[in-house]
Order: sequence, then C-alpha cells, then structure tokens
Amino acid sequence: MKENIKKSFSNKVISRLTLYHCILTHTLTDTLFVSSFEIASLLGIDDSQVRKDIALCGVYGRQKSGYPAHELKQAIEQKLGVSQKNAIIIVGAGNLGSALSNYSDLMDYGIEIVALFDSDDKKIGKTINKKEILPISQLSNFIHHKNINTVILTVPPDKAQEITDTLVQIGVCYIWNFTPCILKVPKNVTVQYENIIGNFLQMKNNAH
Amino acid sequence: MKENIKKSFSNKVISRLTLYHCILTHTLTDTLFVSSFEIASLLGIDDSQVRKDIALCGVYGRQKSGYPAHELKQAIEQKLGVSQKNAIIIVGAGNLGSALSNYSDLMDYGIEIVALFDSDDKKIGKTINKKEILPISQLSNFIHHKNINTVILTVPPDKAQEITDTLVQIGVCYIWNFTPCILKVPKNVTVQYENIIGNFLQMKNNAH
Repeated sequence: MKENIKKSFSNKVISRLTLYHCILTHTLTDTLFVSSFEIASLLGIDDSQVRKDIALCGVYGRQKSGYPAHELKQAIEQKLGVSQKNAIIIVGAGNLGSALSNYSDLMDYGIEIVALFDSDDKKIGKTINKKEILPISQLSNFIHHKNINTVILTVPPDKAQEITDTLVQIGVCYIWNFTPCILKVPKNVTVQYENIIGNFLQMKNNAH
Repeated sequence: MKENIKKSFSNKVISRLTLYHCILTHTLTDTLFVSSFEIASLLGIDDSQVRKDIALCGVYGRQKSGYPAHELKQAIEQKLGVSQKNAIIIVGAGNLGSALSNYSDLMDYGIEIVALFDSDDKKIGKTINKKEILPISQLSNFIHHKNINTVILTVPPDKAQEITDTLVQIGVCYIWNFTPCILKVPKNVTVQYENIIGNFLQMKNNAH
C-alpha cells in the first residue's frame, strides 16, 4: 500500500518550505515578486537559510526584485508532493477529530478526509462537514475498499494503542498521531507525532 | 510580562524529552526501571541519542537495569520547567479551540486554560469544559487582570492577523498559532507555529 516518496529533503527543510508556501498563500497574496528578506523577516529566521531552501526547489531570484511568487509557490508544491492526492480517514470523532475534518487548509495540500470513525453509537450515522461518521467495525472494509493508507488518530489516550493495533493489522502504513501516547508499531508503519506539549515548551524556550 | 526561561536545550532536545516523558506517563506506567533501548525502540530513534539526552537531565542508569523511571520522569519535568504554572487563554472557540480546552494532557504540563474568547454572540456566555466563553471586547481587561502572557490562537485564517495585532497591543508575549497563517509580530513577541501540514508532509517523507 505504501507509495514511493522521494527522500530528498530533511524534516527541517520540509517544515520551512511549508511555511514559505503558507506565506505565499495567506500573507503575501498579491505579490508578484517576493524577496528572501521578506520571508525571513516574517518567520524570524536568517535570509541566507531561505535562499538555500529555495535554491533546493530550483527557483532563482532576480536581483532587486526577488523571486517570482507564483513560480516559487508552484515549485514548492511540486517538491513537497502536494499535487499527490491523499485520501485519509479520522479515527475518533470527538472535538479534535471534528476540528481536523473542518481544517480547510488540508485540502489545499492534497489531503482529503473521506470519513470519520467512532465507537460511540450516538455519533454514528451523523455527518461532520459532509463526512459520515462510521462505526469502528467497518474500518477494515472501508480501508481496503477505498485503498486508504493513512489515518489521523484522535481517540482518547486509553484507546490509542488498541486502535493502533487494529489499524496495523488492517494494513495502514501511516498513523498521524494526535493523542499524547507513544504507539508501539512494527517497523514498516510510520507514526508522526503531533507533539503539542513539546511545541509549547519550545515556544517558552524560544523567547527572544 | 515575559518570564526568564533557561535557554539550555535545543528545540530537538525539548521535543525528544517531552516524548520520553509521555512514554513514562502513558506507556511504561508500571515500570521501576527503563532502558535507553526501550525508549529508543518505541520512538524509532537511536539509543545513544536517548542516553545523551538523559545525561543532560543529570540522571544516570544502572548497568543491566537501566534508569530509575520515577527519578527520570521528575528530572525531565524539572528540566522542561513543567512545574511552572502557565495560565493561558484560547482566542477562537470553534472546534479546534474547544478540542484544545479539553485536551487533558495540557494540565499535566502546567498549562491551565482559564478562559476562551470569541466574537460570535451565540457562543458568548456558554461554557466549554467548565471554562467560560467571553467576548473579544473583554480580552484586554482579562489579560491585564489575570496577568496572562500566552494565547492559543484558533480563529479563522481571515481574522488571524487582526486578532494578533490586538493581542500584541495588549501586551501578549507568546502566541501559540494553530491557524495556517504566518503572523506579523514585533521582535519581542514569540509565535509558535503548529505546522500541521508540514508535519503531514514529514510523515510521508519519513516512510521506512
């Protein structure tokens, strides 16, 4: 089920390129040309770093005017594989799961949430943001039928490992983990931790 | 308003120490001793890295048995400044704001959400997880009265910069930004980006 992904960039480069893309999408929307200084100053990082990252995308700036904004945006999208469509599901239709199913930016990056799953009978059959909430018992059929390989995990902590074991057994390759739990998975499964607490502590550490 | 924070650790070390702490809190709960191999294997990282990080906390393991789990947990808490209580507010009481106000793990790390703010009259006066939703017009008074310096931002993208300008004017030092927007702030204000999209793309890049 796992696609081939180019392992060309480090996590840090990916993270920064995504932020440059956000700047071009939400902040400097009417700009024809953008300079490394503008981007660097918005993110509080060094402009030489911005130039290095952009060079990796094969876009070159013009002296005085900077980089062509539209071309840069497209080059980042291509390098990040954003054009690749990812149909994914959310397991755990609580507040966080609902919030993520409504997170409009995901679609812009090729992430399409196709359904939510929950074990609570009261939620099953309802829709959130036009996506149906299905019972956990239908997970396996749905994943195989729709060829899903990525799951957003937003279940309560005490259910996280149990559901993970089920997902692994079904054949899911990527678990995007929003629970505060460390998950035990076999080596062929990738877990991405949304380390919310760690990010908070970093913010406090990064005070100017 | 800004506290003094020890700038002793890199972001990567902070992030890993938080994950080790999660392991000790949620995964290896009944363990008296824990080895660097156990931690490393759960996170899919190198055990020599785990030993280096733990040495920074001043905890030393015993041959064969490993590190005393309780002592290690306490040492990480001390190093990360978790005992420091942080009263913070959420601006934007939508799905994501509500989810974060219910995120039980925050309290364990000294993060106390004391109120939510929203501009929607229908939400104002209601409570989420025993916290009141207050109108934006009361932000300034509340922040000064309660001596708040940190805000979780979960407003819609088109309101993000406007609310940020208001928060900066009021004197907020830390903005924990869950919107997909890059925020323009003066140098004395720290913005922590929850780069959700970047993390997703990292996961795809990190495939085994």
